[in-house]
Parts: sequence; C-alpha cells; structure tokens
Amino acid sequence: MSDHFLALDWGTTNLRAWVADRDGKVRLRRDFPLGVAGLAPGEAAQRFAADVRPAMAAEQLPAVLCGMIGSTLGWQAVAYADCPASFAALQGALHRIDQPGAPVWIVPGVRTQRADGCGPDVMRGEETHIFGWAMSEASRQRGTHLICHPGTHAKWARLVDNRLENFVTAMTGELFALLRQHSALRVVEAIENEDAFELGLKASGDGGALASRLFTARSRVVGGDMPSDQVESYLSGLLIGAEVAATPALLGVAAPARVAIIGDLALCARYRRALTWHGFEADVFDGEAAVLAGLAALYRGV
Amino acid sequence: MSDHFLALDWGTTNLRAWVADRDGKVRLRRDFPLGVAGLAPGEAAQRFAADVRPAMAAEQLPAVLCGMIGSTLGWQAVAYADCPASFAALQGALHRIDQPGAPVWIVPGVRTQRADGCGPDVMRGEETHIFGWAMSEASRQRGTHLICHPGTHAKWARLVDNRLENFVTAMTGELFALLRQHSALRVVEAIENEDAFELGLKASGDGGALASRLFTARSRVVGGDMPSDQVESYLSGLLIGAEVAATPALLGVAAPARVAIIGDLALCARYRRALTWHGFEADVFDGEAAVLAGLAALYRGV
Repeated sequence: MSDHFLALDWGTTNLRAWVADRDGKVRLRRDFPLGVAGLAPGEAAQRFAADVRPAMAAEQLPAVLCGMIGSTLGWQAVAYADCPASFAALQGALHRIDQPGAPVWIVPGVRTQRADGCGPDVMRGEETHIFGWAMSEASRQRGTHLICHPGTHAKWARLVDNRLENFVTAMTGELFALLRQHSALRVVEAIENEDAFELGLKASGDGGALASRLFTARSRVVGGDMPSDQVESYLSGLLIGAEVAATPALLGVAAPARVAIIGDLALCARYRRALTWHGFEADVFDGEAAVLAGLAALYRGV
Repeated sequence: MSDHFLALDWGTTNLRAWVADRDGKVRLRRDFPLGVAGLAPGEAAQRFAADVRPAMAAEQLPAVLCGMIGSTLGWQAVAYADCPASFAALQGALHRIDQPGAPVWIVPGVRTQRADGCGPDVMRGEETHIFGWAMSEASRQRGTHLICHPGTHAKWARLVDNRLENFVTAMTGELFALLRQHSALRVVEAIENEDAFELGLKASGDGGALASRLFTARSRVVGGDMPSDQVESYLSGLLIGAEVAATPALLGVAAPARVAIIGDLALCARYRRALTWHGFEADVFDGEAAVLAGLAALYRGV
C-alpha cells in the first residue's frame, strides 16, 4: 500500500482534506466547500474524482473518508457499528469502494441505545476523532474517559479501556445558530463579551427549564438589564452551560469528573470555561490532530 | 361613555378585534393580518384609523388595546406595571391617546424579577387574559392559582388573591417553530399522531438536558426507530412535556398542583395532556373569552 494517503473529514457543511503519510504527518492540507448538505444525489463520487483528487494531486492515492459522507445524504450509506465499539470493530467495518487509481474506504458511523431510554443515538465522524485522540494519548488509553466533542451536534462519549461504550448528542450548536439567526433573540450586532458569557453560565442553573432560561436573553434586554450587543455571548454561555450541567448525567457521570474536550480550539476554550464553572476538570485537545491520527490509524490497518 | 367599545388584542403576528358592550357581549368580531412585527414605525396609528375602525364600523367608539401594540414595535411604548400587580394597578396605568371620534387606551405590560435570579421577565397582553379569566371565574378569584398561557412565548403565572404575584416565560412555541422550519429536524410531511406525542412526553423526562433530548427526534428517525412523519407530534410532546415538567418549579410550585390553562383550545388540550402526564391537575379555559372579559373590565373602569 502507498506510503501516503488522502485523508478526508467530509461533514455536513465542509470537507477538510489532507495528504498525509501512514503516521499522519501532513504534506498538504485544504478545505473544500463541498459539505454533504449541499450535494445532489451521486455528486459526491463525481466531485471526489473531478475536484478533490486533482486539487490534492492524489489521483493515485488511496483515500480514507469519515463523516456524513457515509450517510444517505453522502456518497453511500454505510451501516453503523454498534456500541460498545472497539477500534478493531471500526476497522473491520470500513466500507471499500473501488475507484480508478486506488480504492476509497468510508468509515462507518456508530450507533448506541441511549441510557435515558430515548431510543438510539448516532454519530458519523466523531468516532474517528475519538479513537484518534485515544491513539495519540498513548499513556492515557486505558481506564475510563469522558469525552466532549462540541459542535453543531455535540457528542459526549464514555471510552472504557479504549472501547466506545456509550455516547449521547446535544444539539447545542444548532440551537445557538437557530436562535441567533431566526428567533426573537436574533443577534444584529454582537461584541464578544466575557462578562456576558459568564452571566449566561450563571443563568444556566442546573441545565433544566431551558425554554424558560433562554427567554432571559430577551427579557434582560427588553427589561433594561443588558445591552443587546451582549446577547450573543450571553446565549453562548447559557446554552453551553446548560449542556455541560445536564448531559454528563445521561452517561452516569457527575462533577468533579475530568473531561477531554476535542475540537475547534476556540470553541473548546468556551466549553472548558463552562465545565470549570460547573465543577468539572477539563483538558483541551485539537480536533484536527485527533481526526488525522484516527484516519491514519485506520489507513495503517487496511 | 359609550355603551359599546372596540376591544383589540393586538399581538406580534395578528390583530383580533371585537365590538362589544360593557359586559363583553360581542356584536362583531374580526381578525386583521396586522401583527406589530410587520408594521413600519408610525404605521399602527394610521392602520387603526384607516383600516381597523372603518372595518369594524367603530369610528365613534372608544377602544381598549392590549398586547405588543404597547411595545417599542407597536403604536407607542407604554411603561410596564411591576409585580405584584393588581387589576387596579393595571387600570390606573392605562395609557390614553386622544383620537378623532373617541379616545384609545393601551393596556401596560407587566414586568417582574424572576425568582431564579435570571433578571427581569416581561409580558404584554397575557396580563389582560389572566385578569379577565379571574374576573369571569368569580367564585374562584381568591386564593392562589397557577396559570399557564401557552403560545410562542408561554407564560406561567401565580395569582394570589387576585394579584399577579410573579410569572415566568418559556419560549416553547418559538423553539417548536424554529426546529420544525429551520433545523436538522425539519418537518417535511407531518401527520398528527397521538402515540408519537406521548412518546415525546415520555422523552421529556424531568425537563432537563433539553438540547440532548431534542436530538432524539432526529436519531430515532435516522436510527430506524420512528417514521419521519411522526417527528412533529413527537417534538410537540417533548417540548411541551419539558416545559410543564420544569417551569412550575421556577414559581415554587410542584405537582400535584392544579393549573388553569388559558388560550387556544387545541393547544390547551395538548398542554392538559402533558400536565396530566407529569402529575398535575389541569382545567382548560378559552383565551378569547378571557381577553374579552379583561378588556371589558378595563373599559368599565375608564
């Protein structure tokens, strides 16, 4: 197998691509505005061949793809692996598609039954970040870890002796976007404000009664308590605070547990602040390094 | 003063108008698509004179207006009355505007300090429904009542010996609209489904971790647990269930208290089901009758 490969984190809104070696060392990196949400049926394979591979000079390189590209909206629906899921199970469920030049493998998503009895929960892409993080943090692999992967649909996962035991989603990022774009709390002018973020954390309480607490972003402005340019930071603190206050309990975890936050570093910093506020210990890890480590590990196994 | 008057419930998205006598007996009723959200500055007064009054044959009738028409977006910003607020306080704070033919009175909104420490909360319009309900239910006026007024921004209020002691808002209706129109849970085809509504009630739990529970509306579909045409009913049950499970506690009330639900009868029926599920007793009252009773009582006092 080739020493280099094409690593793709192909999500709903964006495609991030690297040419890397088997250890994940990067030779080339590029983003494409080819999120799965914007693709017509059949378009993923065509864009991959016509746009992505040539732009990465990767016509002859094998490729490993994770994310929503493995959903019905993407290239091809790849069956979920079920929790508890080991890295070996993920490896064994890679979906191979033969392509001119070299093959493509799509990483399966993972499905679980939620511990709160509310049916299944699903992820596509975050499993690769999570296992990549575990691979890179060799000394810390064994034992139990609580992982938070913030984003549009944030994932909270329990990793036990390197197996993904269970996880749960919180659609905090999506609620934030909906509220700031379309709601009565619509943000016209925003200034990042640390104090407003902290006021939002305080208002998050125990994470309950969210539909009521959210309204305070409006009533504080209408009632003369807060300038409207602070609503965005306040909302961010309130939503993230409510998430970190209530979600770990769905996995049977409570403060003062230690949480590994994996993702965009600016967003991770906000989560760390919220976790600290709610009595957790938190460490931040770069999501890009994690997913690349996961894709490289999967490539080494094909 | 004239025996008949023009009663207007002039809200964000709609204007409901009646010509009624001093006891609230209706002679004429009409809705206008003139919600304040769609009005330009200064347009309210002009529409009132040019459209509403002529259509109601009310050029010579005094008028009493409640709702968002008293906000900065409406005809004129009318200062809030503060909690605890009596009917007499509301009456005394009516804002008079002299108009050709007969005067107009705008009912003030009410402001409170939230018991959860999250700053002020506000209402405009619901105070007239609430006092109107108390007026009509003469035998039940005294004592403590917990009132739920569902809607875009649902209001929960404690009425003690006919005074509005405190209240809190839950933006459940707005979250429902945002999620069904703009989110990953977007509803394409919906069939009203009682079982899905009840499944949503079950999934509401104690009202906590809402951002996580909401995602189950998607993961149940993607995970093969629920047909997509049931998402709307499920979401409705989940959001209303979470609201009734968590909001009364913000007013110091817990099940099995008795709740008076005032509003649109179909929506009230959903709230009654959710309240019963969570152990409350609930009675439903027509919101139109309530606001008309409130406006008539205010008219009798001018």
